[in-house]
Amino acid sequence: MKVSTTITVCLTGLMMGCSQNVQRFGSVIGVKEEALEKYKKMHAQPWPEVNAQLKESNIQNYSIYLTQWPDGDYYLFAYFEYVGDDFDADMKKMADNPKIKEWWSHTDPMQIPLSNKKEGQWWKDMEEVYHLD
Amino acid sequence: MKVSTTITVCLTGLMMGCSQNVQRFGSVIGVKEEALEKYKKMHAQPWPEVNAQLKESNIQNYSIYLTQWPDGDYYLFAYFEYVGDDFDADMKKMADNPKIKEWWSHTDPMQIPLSNKKEGQWWKDMEEVYHLD
Repeated sequence: MKVSTTITVCLTGLMMGCSQNVQRFGSVIGVKEEALEKYKKMHAQPWPEVNAQLKESNIQNYSIYLTQWPDGDYYLFAYFEYVGDDFDADMKKMADNPKIKEWWSHTDPMQIPLSNKKEGQWWKDMEEVYHLD
Repeated sequence: MKVSTTITVCLTGLMMGCSQNVQRFGSVIGVKEEALEKYKKMHAQPWPEVNAQLKESNIQNYSIYLTQWPDGDYYLFAYFEYVGDDFDADMKKMADNPKIKEWWSHTDPMQIPLSNKKEGQWWKDMEEVYHLD
């Protein structure tokens, strides 16, 4: 999982997308049909070091959903909550972790970023338009 | 928001998609470009009766995300958690609420269900392939 580091971290709890110092993220990416079995297997039994680093980087309540589009292609949708106070630093810790690098070396080739994602993103960030706590 | 009532409610906390009697849902639907402004405005200031019924029906941590696809079309992605013990009954309470009916009479015409959704669904349910608490 790579996330944009350009998003300002919410500290006030008053911004859209934030409540009680929780910053929520929704994002989307394509996944190759031939990689589905391996992707699902890896994520059904994730490496303990990967989950540990996510928690260490203040990520919680992280879910990934898979769905097939009417045209036959497949997409992944991620939802997670960030509860730290330095998003960029926490993401850098992730990116610097050798086990995370190894994990991404498996998952990146399985994924197809959306062509209209923003520069520097891997998963395309989506816009939150509604939230109920 | 309409959700399939065919999904068995998780009571054990052991099934995929469940932890501590929380059942998570991810779903997707199209939204018409000409309806975006009204959809966003409604969801930025949702009717209190609608939010109250969602809570009454044991829905929590409910977010909706919007994104544009590379082909120009728009889609909505919903994530929410169900914390009750009778999903069908709670969804029926929602569907029977006149304010919810009125809300849906506005939102349904703005949405375009995916053609490959399951029969009886409005939003297309997605498959959870990963979760970290």
